[in-house]
Amino acid sequence: MSRYWSPIVEQLSPYVPGEQPQIENLVKLNTNEHPYGPSPKVIEAIRGELGDGLRLYPDPTAEKLRQTVADYYGLKLEQVFAGNGSDEVLAHTFFALFQQSRPLLFPDITYSFYPVYCRLYGIEYKAIPLAEDFSLQVDDYRHANGGIIFPNPNAPTGRLLPLSEIERLLRMNTESVVVVDEAYIDFGGESAAALVDGYPNLLVIQTLSKSRALAGLRIGVALGDADLIAGLVRVKDSFNSYPMDRLAIAATVAAFEDDDYFREMNGRVIASREKLAIDLQKMGFDVVPSSANFVFARHPQHDAAELAAALRQKGVIVRYFNKPRIDQHLRITIGTPEQNQRLVDALNTIL
Amino acid sequence: MSRYWSPIVEQLSPYVPGEQPQIENLVKLNTNEHPYGPSPKVIEAIRGELGDGLRLYPDPTAEKLRQTVADYYGLKLEQVFAGNGSDEVLAHTFFALFQQSRPLLFPDITYSFYPVYCRLYGIEYKAIPLAEDFSLQVDDYRHANGGIIFPNPNAPTGRLLPLSEIERLLRMNTESVVVVDEAYIDFGGESAAALVDGYPNLLVIQTLSKSRALAGLRIGVALGDADLIAGLVRVKDSFNSYPMDRLAIAATVAAFEDDDYFREMNGRVIASREKLAIDLQKMGFDVVPSSANFVFARHPQHDAAELAAALRQKGVIVRYFNKPRIDQHLRITIGTPEQNQRLVDALNTIL
Repeated sequence: MSRYWSPIVEQLSPYVPGEQPQIENLVKLNTNEHPYGPSPKVIEAIRGELGDGLRLYPDPTAEKLRQTVADYYGLKLEQVFAGNGSDEVLAHTFFALFQQSRPLLFPDITYSFYPVYCRLYGIEYKAIPLAEDFSLQVDDYRHANGGIIFPNPNAPTGRLLPLSEIERLLRMNTESVVVVDEAYIDFGGESAAALVDGYPNLLVIQTLSKSRALAGLRIGVALGDADLIAGLVRVKDSFNSYPMDRLAIAATVAAFEDDDYFREMNGRVIASREKLAIDLQKMGFDVVPSSANFVFARHPQHDAAELAAALRQKGVIVRYFNKPRIDQHLRITIGTPEQNQRLVDALNTIL
Repeated sequence: MSRYWSPIVEQLSPYVPGEQPQIENLVKLNTNEHPYGPSPKVIEAIRGELGDGLRLYPDPTAEKLRQTVADYYGLKLEQVFAGNGSDEVLAHTFFALFQQSRPLLFPDITYSFYPVYCRLYGIEYKAIPLAEDFSLQVDDYRHANGGIIFPNPNAPTGRLLPLSEIERLLRMNTESVVVVDEAYIDFGGESAAALVDGYPNLLVIQTLSKSRALAGLRIGVALGDADLIAGLVRVKDSFNSYPMDRLAIAATVAAFEDDDYFREMNGRVIASREKLAIDLQKMGFDVVPSSANFVFARHPQHDAAELAAALRQKGVIVRYFNKPRIDQHLRITIGTPEQNQRLVDALNTIL
């Protein structure tokens, strides 16, 4: 604590991202990155922006990016917001929509950045326990609230809530905003973007870091009613007029245009996930059904923290969360078939 | 106003950036961009990052970027913070350091984003009038305060406060943070980075958008005591863990390493500025002495808004602010010699 800080700074509880180790030949299955690179057309589009034009500010409204995403989902330009990664989009969402007199609701097991944003902006929240099998029960959200947010598929469990259940939630909760955080939706779910036109209180957030293999750039979007987006824009324009740089704008346009590549590469991840789930089950793991690019698994006979440490010794990094209800689980990102095999081999020597 | 917004959203007064028109063959002298592109080594460095590696998250601490900037100024890694443009760095600074019980002080004529941040975070402020000649008088800041911020050179006046005066301010104001916003320092001033080791309450903010010709990327840095930087990091890690993408990190390293190019190109801008100032004076303009990459000028016989409109008709865009004390001035970015000549020619036909 410094005497020069704003008093609130001491009370923050900053998010701790997954490790980005600089070790060679490591099997890195800890931060849910895509095992394959972005589309070659994305690289080409970025290359096309390199030159003297970088001296000029980008379009502060990132219109080309937003129009491309709008077209992809059959929405209008004013229904799309863009930010410097979905974490920034989430931060603005908490500020613009969730500073309410009633508490925000989210699952007890979820993306651990949500309570961090709440601290940052002084938002009261209530964690709603998931069922024993980690499924989200929509009826548990029948509380007076200032907003609801959850990832779908959920993180770090990987479990999907069907679109019909999301629609049921929207029908019963019309007085506050419902945010569906779709970081992993392209690995097996159906986007709630299809519901945006029907529900003025729905906001869908996506990232290009996972299914579009662009974690190295920082690009996130939000889809929702024009009034919700206008609120986000007011906050963005009070914070940073130009969050999206010229290269990110060009990359996003190219990424959404190359749909064949996108489907092909995500198809491979899904196939690898199904294989890995079976391999893990054969070794005695309980594997939560996943619709994401990771699996969440526990072994009844082996402590999860010890397993993670033993894997690390063998050059395989997975994510372990020392938190209630999930401290016996490991979250394992789906890698290439070779990487997944190295994980399985390592586990076979440990178990 | 939407019923779904947080109540504070309606009270915001978003910043309005300078126009980014899409018209061909326009002489764009309205947003203080560099007339020459970034160093070829920057382009090369970005190119070197293009590939499958973009699927991986960047280093959340942007250590390479920060170490490069630290080395450049003879500082330590923990004395450097990086953000998605200096606007984001400023936003985090207002949150982390200026939410105090006493009002923030800044000049009445200054970067118009400062009051916007104050609204965003509920910070009370007091605008201190500049002298008649737009100079900042350090003694006017002898008020109880929760912080002081000003650009140096000031914007949109271009006037420089000498480093000796900044040091005098730091000696008399030890109980709150003093932020020197050096967006334009490389066009004729001496950076207060040299004072960081001596004053624990000094924060220096810089951008790569102006003197390093990288407005098209979004990169800003803050230099200060490790305790101040730690406060900024706590806020950053409660907002967005990975604000700097892989390409921005590589570009920054290359930009600071190619010091010859940097000095050469800024030298050209400075020479053009001196010539343009004389040309404008010959036409009857009063020109504020500038240490920036723009001049701030008024013509005693011509209304500034009308001049700006007439210039626009002739394909030359300059920035006009409809604000008290400066509504008869134009802010004119220094372009290439050819662009500056087109401005002068256009003015000659108008006046």
